[in-house]
Amino acid sequence: MRTQVGIIGAGPAGLLLSHLLHLRGIESVVLEARSRGEIESTIRAGVLEQGTMDLLNEAGLGARMQAEGAVHHGFELAFEGQRRRIALTELTGHSITVYAQHEVIKDLVAARVAAYGALKFGVTDVSLHNFDDAPGSTRPSVRYRHEGFEHELECDFIIGCDGSQGVARGSMPQAVRHDYQRIYPFGWFGILVEAPPSAHELIYARHDRGFALISTRSPNVQRMYFQCDPKDSVDAWSDDRIWSELHARVDTLDGWQITEGRIFQKNIVGMRSFVSTPMQAGKLFLAGDAAHIVPPTGAKGMNLAVSDVRVLTAALQAFYEEGASDKLDRYTETALKRVWRAEHFSWWMTRMLHKLDDTSPFEQRLQVAELEHVTTSRAAATALAENYVGSVAV
Amino acid sequence: MRTQVGIIGAGPAGLLLSHLLHLRGIESVVLEARSRGEIESTIRAGVLEQGTMDLLNEAGLGARMQAEGAVHHGFELAFEGQRRRIALTELTGHSITVYAQHEVIKDLVAARVAAYGALKFGVTDVSLHNFDDAPGSTRPSVRYRHEGFEHELECDFIIGCDGSQGVARGSMPQAVRHDYQRIYPFGWFGILVEAPPSAHELIYARHDRGFALISTRSPNVQRMYFQCDPKDSVDAWSDDRIWSELHARVDTLDGWQITEGRIFQKNIVGMRSFVSTPMQAGKLFLAGDAAHIVPPTGAKGMNLAVSDVRVLTAALQAFYEEGASDKLDRYTETALKRVWRAEHFSWWMTRMLHKLDDTSPFEQRLQVAELEHVTTSRAAATALAENYVGSVAV
Repeated sequence: MRTQVGIIGAGPAGLLLSHLLHLRGIESVVLEARSRGEIESTIRAGVLEQGTMDLLNEAGLGARMQAEGAVHHGFELAFEGQRRRIALTELTGHSITVYAQHEVIKDLVAARVAAYGALKFGVTDVSLHNFDDAPGSTRPSVRYRHEGFEHELECDFIIGCDGSQGVARGSMPQAVRHDYQRIYPFGWFGILVEAPPSAHELIYARHDRGFALISTRSPNVQRMYFQCDPKDSVDAWSDDRIWSELHARVDTLDGWQITEGRIFQKNIVGMRSFVSTPMQAGKLFLAGDAAHIVPPTGAKGMNLAVSDVRVLTAALQAFYEEGASDKLDRYTETALKRVWRAEHFSWWMTRMLHKLDDTSPFEQRLQVAELEHVTTSRAAATALAENYVGSVAV
Repeated sequence: MRTQVGIIGAGPAGLLLSHLLHLRGIESVVLEARSRGEIESTIRAGVLEQGTMDLLNEAGLGARMQAEGAVHHGFELAFEGQRRRIALTELTGHSITVYAQHEVIKDLVAARVAAYGALKFGVTDVSLHNFDDAPGSTRPSVRYRHEGFEHELECDFIIGCDGSQGVARGSMPQAVRHDYQRIYPFGWFGILVEAPPSAHELIYARHDRGFALISTRSPNVQRMYFQCDPKDSVDAWSDDRIWSELHARVDTLDGWQITEGRIFQKNIVGMRSFVSTPMQAGKLFLAGDAAHIVPPTGAKGMNLAVSDVRVLTAALQAFYEEGASDKLDRYTETALKRVWRAEHFSWWMTRMLHKLDDTSPFEQRLQVAELEHVTTSRAAATALAENYVGSVAV
C-alpha cells in the first residue's frame, strides 16, 4: 500500500493531522494499536486553548464542542483559605473551553470515517524503515500487522504521533538525540463524581497538605484531583478519606465548601516533564506526546499536540504545494519554541501549587508570596493568563 | 540618658529612621558598633528603587545622589550569546538610580551630624532591657559601653537596625519566633575595576558556566561579579583567570565584549534568603537586615530596609502625634508584605540566572525558556520590571 503521509497513532495529534492534511488534499493513513472503543473512552485532559478551539472550528470539527463544551472566562487560585480569580478574558481577550479530550477524539474519528479516511485500529508489530534520507535510500515505509496479515505502507513521510511509549521516538537514530526530563515525586489522585459543579470555574488550590484541582466535565459529572504519592493505591482511599482530604485542601475560610457526590472512578497518574530533541530525523517527524510530556497542571498536553500539528501541516502543505522543504527542515526549531514555553509554564504552575518533597518553610512562604503576586499584579496575572489561554508570544 | 527612640545600628535603616523621626520632631539616639570611617567605606549594594530615591529626596537627602548617581531606564538580560533589554521606564513609568550604599550612608551621617543628632560610634556590649510590655515593667532601656564608660539609654521604643549578626534579633523572646531560610550553594566573586563602563546599563547574564553581573560605580570604576563557590579563595583567581571567566559568560555572539581594566579589589560573598518573624516584640522592632536577608540578585537589600523604615516612621509618628498604636501593632504584618514580595523576586532572579547545584539539563533549558519569556512577553517583562523598580503592588 502507498500513501503520502503515514501517521502512527490515533490520538489527538495523529487524527487531527490526518484530517487537516485531507482538507488540503494530502492523503494519509493512520495506524493505531488500540481499538476505537478504547481511544474514545480513555479519560484524559479537558482544557482547550482558544487557538485549539479556533483550529477545530476552522477544520469543521467544532459543532459538538460548541454545543457541549463550556467556555470559561477565568479560573481561580485558592490559597490561605481564600479564592482569587484570574480573569482570563479580561486580561487577554481570550478564553478556554472545557471539553474532554476523548470527546475531541470522537469528533476526529467521526470526521475521518465520514471522509472515508484510512484509519486502522488494532495494529501491532509496527516498525519504521528507510526514513533516514540517506543517498540512494528507497522510500520510507511502515511495516505492521493488522487483522492477521503483515502489511507494508510506503509513504513520503512518517509522522510519529504514538505517544511517549510509542515506537516512533525509539526508531530515531539515538546518537544525536538529547532528552530532557524531570520526574516529579508526586502524582494526582483523580476522581469522577456525580454531582453538580462546586464552582463556576476551575479551582487550582495550593495547600500545605498538597495541591488540589476542582474541575468539571458536565452539569452532572465533576472531575477532581488531589496531589498524592504516585506509588499510593486507590484502595487505600475510601470515599470518606477522599472527601476529608479535598475539604481540607480546598474549602475556604468564609465557609464555602466543595460539593460532594457519588465517586464512580478513582485513578492515580504520575507526573513528569519531558522533551526529546530533535523532533525529526530525515523523513520521520514526531508530534505531541511522542516528543514531549508536560505535567497536567498547566492543561497544556493536548494543546501542545495541536500546536505541533499546526506547524507540521503548514510545512507539509508547503512541500506538496510548492515543493518547498524549508518549513519541514525548521520543524523542530519552530515547534520547540512553543514546547519550551509550555514546559516552563507547566513547571511553573506545578512548582507554585504543589507540595514539593524539598519544600522548606521558606519555599512554602515563597509559593504564597508568588500566588499573592499573580493575583494582585495585573502584569503578573496577565503573564499567567496569556500562558494559560495560549496567547503568549513565542 | 533618655530619648524617645533608641536605634541600634547606623546602617541605612538606622540612620534613615533617625533622620526621618527628627524631621517629625521625634528624638532618637543611634548606637553603632563600628567607626564612622568603617560604615562610610564598606562597599555594598548600589541600586536604588524609585521609591527609595523619592524618600531620600523628600527628606532633603538627595542632592549628591542626584548629582553623582546615574539614573537607569532599563537593564539587560544576557543569555545564549544575546543581550535583551528590560525597558524599566517604558514598562513601568519608573526608573532606578545606581548610587552606592556607602554614599547613601555618607549623606545620612552628614545629615545627622548637621542636625546635631545623637550618633555614637564604637559602641560595645549592647544589651536590650524591659521592652517586653509586661504589666508593671519599667521603660525599655539599652545598656552599652562607649569610650570606656557604661551607659544606660532609657527610651519608649528600641529599634534593631543592627543587621543579621546584631544583638537585636537575638534579644527577642525565642518561643514565638519563626525563621525562614535558604542558603544558596554558591557565592558572588566581586571585583572593582578601573575602566569605563562596558555598557550603558547593568547586564545580568545567565550562562551554563554560571551567572555574571556587569554593574558600574562611576565613569571610571566598574563593579563586576560572577557566580563562584562560596568556599573559593580570591587568591585562586588571577586577573587573567577572572577576565577569561567573565568573557566566557558575558560576551555576545555578535562580537561585543566586556571592557577590561586594572582590578583593584576582589572579594567573595555568600548568598542566602532569610526572614525572621515577627519583626516586633513589645517595644522592640526590627528593620532591614536585622529581620531579613535577600540574595543580591534582585538588588533589593537596601530598598527593603528603606521600606521597613517608611512603615515604622509612619507608625511612630501616629503614636507620638495621635497616641495611636494600631500602626505599630500591625508593623510586622504591613512590612512583611513587601518583604515577601522582595524575597520571592530575589529568589526568582537568582533561580532564573544562576547555575544551581541541582540544575539538570531540563532546568537549564527552563531557565532559557523563562528568559525568552520575560524578554518577549510584554506582560511578563512588565511584571519583572515592576518588581525591579519596586512599583509592584503588595
